[in-house]
Amino acid sequence: MGMSVKIKDVAKRAGVSTTTVSRVLNGEKYVREELKDRVNQAIEDLGYAPSHIARSLVRNKTNLLGVIVPDLTSSFYSTILSSIEQTAASNHYNLLVCNISEDIDKEFKYLNIFKEMRVEGIIIMHEKINEDIRNFIEKLKIPVIFSSVKPMDQSFVSVIVDDYAAAYDATTYLIGLGHKQIAFIGGDMRDMTSGQNRYSGYRNALADHGIKFVHELVRFGDYKVNSGYALMGEFLRYKHKPTAVFAVSDDMAIGAVNCIIDHGLKVPDDISVIGFDGSQMTELVRPRITSMEQPIQRMGEVTVETLLQFIAGEKRTAEDIILGHRLAVRDSCRPL
Amino acid sequence: MGMSVKIKDVAKRAGVSTTTVSRVLNGEKYVREELKDRVNQAIEDLGYAPSHIARSLVRNKTNLLGVIVPDLTSSFYSTILSSIEQTAASNHYNLLVCNISEDIDKEFKYLNIFKEMRVEGIIIMHEKINEDIRNFIEKLKIPVIFSSVKPMDQSFVSVIVDDYAAAYDATTYLIGLGHKQIAFIGGDMRDMTSGQNRYSGYRNALADHGIKFVHELVRFGDYKVNSGYALMGEFLRYKHKPTAVFAVSDDMAIGAVNCIIDHGLKVPDDISVIGFDGSQMTELVRPRITSMEQPIQRMGEVTVETLLQFIAGEKRTAEDIILGHRLAVRDSCRPL
Repeated sequence: MGMSVKIKDVAKRAGVSTTTVSRVLNGEKYVREELKDRVNQAIEDLGYAPSHIARSLVRNKTNLLGVIVPDLTSSFYSTILSSIEQTAASNHYNLLVCNISEDIDKEFKYLNIFKEMRVEGIIIMHEKINEDIRNFIEKLKIPVIFSSVKPMDQSFVSVIVDDYAAAYDATTYLIGLGHKQIAFIGGDMRDMTSGQNRYSGYRNALADHGIKFVHELVRFGDYKVNSGYALMGEFLRYKHKPTAVFAVSDDMAIGAVNCIIDHGLKVPDDISVIGFDGSQMTELVRPRITSMEQPIQRMGEVTVETLLQFIAGEKRTAEDIILGHRLAVRDSCRPL
Repeated sequence: MGMSVKIKDVAKRAGVSTTTVSRVLNGEKYVREELKDRVNQAIEDLGYAPSHIARSLVRNKTNLLGVIVPDLTSSFYSTILSSIEQTAASNHYNLLVCNISEDIDKEFKYLNIFKEMRVEGIIIMHEKINEDIRNFIEKLKIPVIFSSVKPMDQSFVSVIVDDYAAAYDATTYLIGLGHKQIAFIGGDMRDMTSGQNRYSGYRNALADHGIKFVHELVRFGDYKVNSGYALMGEFLRYKHKPTAVFAVSDDMAIGAVNCIIDHGLKVPDDISVIGFDGSQMTELVRPRITSMEQPIQRMGEVTVETLLQFIAGEKRTAEDIILGHRLAVRDSCRPL
């Protein structure tokens, strides 16, 4: 396997002592330039692997975490990734980042690479885990944590908000403002947290406040701006337009607001819109968008901290870590 | 160094042939479950490093690229990173991602990690390269490419647009619409491309069209939304407000637009605004923002393709790769 190159081979080839090789490898000062050059040349000639890789082999420590993101261009995911990166870095861990764009084949390929690169832990930020991937992950014997999402399978730990309660609270907020015709732009119903749970929260809030559920006021999108825009367009064609819209992602809320504006109507004068996530975009558009916020920064921190505990050998439980949600009132909702 | 564990040691400990170990390592089917377990146990006991790392040591191929990003939460950088990731993945390369947030110490730390992890190439997306970092990079003997930025130092290759010409064209567009009071929200003047070159383009376009340069109409920000907002606020306090504003990043343009709207004025009715970059944000806000676009997707592709050529041994020249810029006319500028 060619793995037999040792420090003494390097020393021999360079014509120096093994101590000198060590000193060069450790980057110590006061090693003569000429000796350094000889050692480095020998290392190159022999393909010797110093420091990190060698240490990894011995200690089984690579200080690498693998991260699977569904969409790097989304403000939500790039913000949580930024927080994950910062927390990892301050714990001396580095990230291998994979952007799968919902491509299952790519996910398999990357999980294999994570295995080969000996990542110490894996963070996954999408919840469409099929049977094959679940089995594969379980065989890896590498700690895995889900961040912001929860797969159907209960055997993994997720760092999430209580999506049901958050959606319930968002809907109740609109009801409290006097709205009864509340449209819902949901997520993918194959997703437990962002799809099913947020939908249930919406339905039960209506029911608990004696508001009739209207099937025509419910549509499901893909969390992205364009789908919020398109689905809002359908609502605007109704004779009895909704007076408020709850979109389960800020991106879809922005799409809905743009659609309303582009039809010559005003937010919140004509229609109120509330989003979900707490993406920084909500502050950048006009009107600024009221949103049920997840603590994105904190979510990234807790994800890494918990994963590092697993890596350190702490026993994994199947209990999720639930962070608090928070309503951020901005300018896109008004009382009726 | 503990590096002497070989495949035959694993075979001996597991009580199987080296062929069986190989078959297990290569994930072949039809290996008895019990043999697999014994081999895996032996691998674990001995700390043997199969496949990727071992092959890396031999072939000096890690298929890793290191990427240094200044700000993962910026729409511009997350989009170019997404493109880099896709192009790398389709060439069987994986990314180690470092978000430095302009922290030079962090950059040094990461460059060291890149070295230890034996990345085959490095992509850097900020241009504040000081003498120490330049020397460090040169000693690494790892191919380096700059993407979307150009450091002062001419010895590195950059994939960029012609920032001078792009800024010249953006300014000329406003002049063509009849504007003469054109404010400029520039970047960091320590940055050659996004700072100095875009400023020169603005100044020379004014000069070539016989428009007097007004010092009060020039401010410099940090490319982010908040600085565009704050600097626009200064222009709005003038008795003779500008009729148009050129901001050298879309984020600053969005900040400027928001500031104008928040002061009860309209874009483009009262003031026209043009941005720079081609970030997807320009489509998501209302009014949609006219922008001098860089080909962000293509920039990511060309960056990786060029770096892989360097890795493959192609001789590096000091010539930059200049991609075309393009004016995307949207709704934020009007003729006077």
